[in-house]
Amino acid sequence: MRDISPLQKERLAYKPKLAGALANGIKNIKLALGAETQAVADREDIKKLFSHVYGKPIAKFDTVGQDLSDELKNIGVILSGGQAPGGHNVIAGLYDAIKTANKENKLYGFLGGPSGIVDGKYMEMTDEIINAYRNTGGFDIIGSGRTKLETEDQFKKALEVCKKLNISAIVIIGGDDSNTNACLLAEWMAENNTGISVIGCPKTIDGDLKNDQIEISFGFDTATKTYAELIGNIQRDANSAKKYWHFIKLMGRSASHVCLEVALQTQPNITLIGEEVEAKKQSLNDIVSYMATIIAQRGNAGKNFGTALIPEGLIEFIPEMKVMIASLNDLLAGLEKDETYKNASQNQKYEIISSKLDTESANLFNSLPSQIKAQLLMDRDPHGNVQVSKIETEKLLIEMVREKLEEMKKQGSYKGKFADQAHFFGYEGRCAMPSNFDADYCYSLGYNAFALVQSGLTGYLSSIKNTTKPASEWVAGGVPLTMMMNMERRHGEMKPVIKKALVDLEGAPFKALEKNRDKWAKEDCYIFPGAIQYFGPSEVCDVTTITLQLEQEKQLVNV
Amino acid sequence: MRDISPLQKERLAYKPKLAGALANGIKNIKLALGAETQAVADREDIKKLFSHVYGKPIAKFDTVGQDLSDELKNIGVILSGGQAPGGHNVIAGLYDAIKTANKENKLYGFLGGPSGIVDGKYMEMTDEIINAYRNTGGFDIIGSGRTKLETEDQFKKALEVCKKLNISAIVIIGGDDSNTNACLLAEWMAENNTGISVIGCPKTIDGDLKNDQIEISFGFDTATKTYAELIGNIQRDANSAKKYWHFIKLMGRSASHVCLEVALQTQPNITLIGEEVEAKKQSLNDIVSYMATIIAQRGNAGKNFGTALIPEGLIEFIPEMKVMIASLNDLLAGLEKDETYKNASQNQKYEIISSKLDTESANLFNSLPSQIKAQLLMDRDPHGNVQVSKIETEKLLIEMVREKLEEMKKQGSYKGKFADQAHFFGYEGRCAMPSNFDADYCYSLGYNAFALVQSGLTGYLSSIKNTTKPASEWVAGGVPLTMMMNMERRHGEMKPVIKKALVDLEGAPFKALEKNRDKWAKEDCYIFPGAIQYFGPSEVCDVTTITLQLEQEKQLVNV
Repeated sequence: MRDISPLQKERLAYKPKLAGALANGIKNIKLALGAETQAVADREDIKKLFSHVYGKPIAKFDTVGQDLSDELKNIGVILSGGQAPGGHNVIAGLYDAIKTANKENKLYGFLGGPSGIVDGKYMEMTDEIINAYRNTGGFDIIGSGRTKLETEDQFKKALEVCKKLNISAIVIIGGDDSNTNACLLAEWMAENNTGISVIGCPKTIDGDLKNDQIEISFGFDTATKTYAELIGNIQRDANSAKKYWHFIKLMGRSASHVCLEVALQTQPNITLIGEEVEAKKQSLNDIVSYMATIIAQRGNAGKNFGTALIPEGLIEFIPEMKVMIASLNDLLAGLEKDETYKNASQNQKYEIISSKLDTESANLFNSLPSQIKAQLLMDRDPHGNVQVSKIETEKLLIEMVREKLEEMKKQGSYKGKFADQAHFFGYEGRCAMPSNFDADYCYSLGYNAFALVQSGLTGYLSSIKNTTKPASEWVAGGVPLTMMMNMERRHGEMKPVIKKALVDLEGAPFKALEKNRDKWAKEDCYIFPGAIQYFGPSEVCDVTTITLQLEQEKQLVNV
Repeated sequence: MRDISPLQKERLAYKPKLAGALANGIKNIKLALGAETQAVADREDIKKLFSHVYGKPIAKFDTVGQDLSDELKNIGVILSGGQAPGGHNVIAGLYDAIKTANKENKLYGFLGGPSGIVDGKYMEMTDEIINAYRNTGGFDIIGSGRTKLETEDQFKKALEVCKKLNISAIVIIGGDDSNTNACLLAEWMAENNTGISVIGCPKTIDGDLKNDQIEISFGFDTATKTYAELIGNIQRDANSAKKYWHFIKLMGRSASHVCLEVALQTQPNITLIGEEVEAKKQSLNDIVSYMATIIAQRGNAGKNFGTALIPEGLIEFIPEMKVMIASLNDLLAGLEKDETYKNASQNQKYEIISSKLDTESANLFNSLPSQIKAQLLMDRDPHGNVQVSKIETEKLLIEMVREKLEEMKKQGSYKGKFADQAHFFGYEGRCAMPSNFDADYCYSLGYNAFALVQSGLTGYLSSIKNTTKPASEWVAGGVPLTMMMNMERRHGEMKPVIKKALVDLEGAPFKALEKNRDKWAKEDCYIFPGAIQYFGPSEVCDVTTITLQLEQEKQLVNV
């Protein structure tokens, strides 16, 4: 049988494009430093916590400026957190830069995520290994993990491992939390005069690691294109068979960027955005009514089909749900020891709980389908808390919309039929073969990370800007991690964290949805993006997300 | 906002390749007729039922032979049954052939499936309409439907509509059932000297409409490539995160071709094939044990992840499940009026049912997770029968495998962790943009259908052979529909039907799975096919399914 697919074979041979200044080769890159920077908020607190790496200038690579060091360097690289398409290309870009600088330089990959550097589990990267992973999806080259690097003990162990391997820089490929921890590690390494620098790379398919300096996190482009392919196909099916409503949940708990981008690409009938739900203080009933109204309008016009996009984190954005879940957590902790409760039937349990919740939460709880009630009571995490992530939001909404439509039918305001299909897309896109954009962007991010190391910088995030333009016009550089930080409450304590980018309800991407969604609801404006293409015309293969294009256009207008 | 996506735009301009003899243009096609044919079985019965269209010769188009008629013809086309990628191209090929023959010829599309011709709902196809749908997925150009054309009354109404529109041929694009009905219609039209011919086109993503004359049904190539893309991505994710077992159900109730083809493309750890389950009389417990054994082996080797492919129709292939479901149908019909049963709690209901089933069925019923038991009792169709298609087989297997692994853990034979993710893929692929293969194949099938009409033939299926070779070597022709028929019991009556192609356990595709699956189970031999490509190297873009390639190789060896 086959070893690799025909497309895998072709993609291994693809030569990713490097950002402008980097394309001259690592030996011809010059460094230009800008003015000092400040944290996005809570400046004094952040400065105190990161006194050795705080407030550094923004770095930019160019054809004029300071020479980079050509010192020999061994570097360690870590993949942290959930997979995102292009991770292998960050490593390939880093590797190629390192080896172009000096064949004696070594790149070590720490295995299974951040725990690899603590436990000293690593492998040395070679041409053979790297060449088998170029332009491929997945994080399987060295594996990933979710261990958080944050304790003194971990840092000490990491230092020992680095000393043993003569490593003088660590590159951490991760999302906002992983890069917050990269900054903690950078600070500790600087404070202890270890001479070891730490550079981050912005990864997440969720798209919530972005700001003035970071235009897009890698993987968002490929993942959203993959989901858009599937949703386009489903819309074509819905529009052909004309008998199903497809409720489609999309990965992304903390922000609804994925949902928004996919909606802009496919123009579905209904799109829910968590940030809007929260800002408008919508109740679950508001959301169900909104959906049912559109379904009824279409049904009354003879269209008993459609598509609805639902962000994975929706439940956590609904204010009344947050209140109810918090109450449930308290309540269930107490009821755990209550014999009457423990011996009660399922329905009696619901009654007991309902009687102990405040009126609003009780009403909400009682309005939930029994399957969801059961899920809330049963599936709890080791701390006894309700596992919000396990709630099948798409099915919850289907059940509640069905009930609402039945009411409307009785009242005579709905004459259609409602048949449903539920989908959840996440794992389908996290490890897709990176699009040309992500392949090029990631390769540049990795190559650039080495340029930052050779600039003697630490506590920086690798940054490639101007990414809606061709790669030759991309601008490479680095952003101090502290610049993106503020203080937030986590598990009851104030912690320094990189500020998450939520969907901006005043931003151009959301405004585009808002302006069009009534039309998309009523008419069938479906767009069918099709599968990601690697070899065709540039407008098909190389263009990045609509979100980024709209954001950049907006910036131009503002400038 | 956009009207169409960049890829849609490019694909509209794609010029599909025509099969060898057809590429000379409709005016240069010559007809060669072979020897008379026979039904695949039950010849006397089939001959009696189809006395006017039975036993016709196989038709082949070539550069030498009889001239085709150049009479003016209006033609009606119908899309029947579930969507399959390429349907629009069948219509486009038919349209182009018709209009190339004579601009005065008209093509009418009947709306919403076979009911369109009965109810006289149609639209005339124009350049503008056809050009907006070339090489696109879906059946939305005229819609599809599941009405069965089989009664005298329907035939009479269809005839009236045809007379009104001066239609002298009907092309029906459908699966085995739709083509059986096409043959009934052809027979009726011939018997009544209407002068109206009926030609079928082989459609189904399920892949079960194939035989010596029909190498592949259209849509199977694109749908399986789309599912393989997703499963490859999921495998890369599993192999990167190393923490989930993905149980993936794939559309296809009557046969497991989709599962088999996708397995050959992606090399998952576990593949279930319904036809094998049936042939080996496997019990549900056998299947669960097989899966649990592999999961335990991998878990004990530190690999707590993997992928399992499950055909949608699995349940219906398990002999003991069939028996139990038949008993349940009888039992529940009686219990419906039983007051004790009706007032019983859910658990009491299970006990009542278990006490009334025979021992084997009772044991099987008791072994099912309660969610599945509830599904069996609750979700019943209008005739009161258990709705087998609603059983979430992937979740049933997850629950039962989990229990089995817990037992094994207690016995000390399993030391791993089992965390699951369930998926069901079907709607994601049925309306994907057709691959180059399906775009070319379908266009040729449609073009060819008109050549069959102009040959004066009726009761034929459009046939394009030699499809693993470049299109210039494809062989165009027609197969008498009666040749593929036999008698089968349907709803208690013997009916003529096109024989469904089940997975051949002696065929090369299944043998390839059988030979490799132990290795694929233990090792990580995952293949990542990636997204369907339209513009790249031919070995990436134009090659059809592994199933067909293996079947054709086998034939060559046999010849």
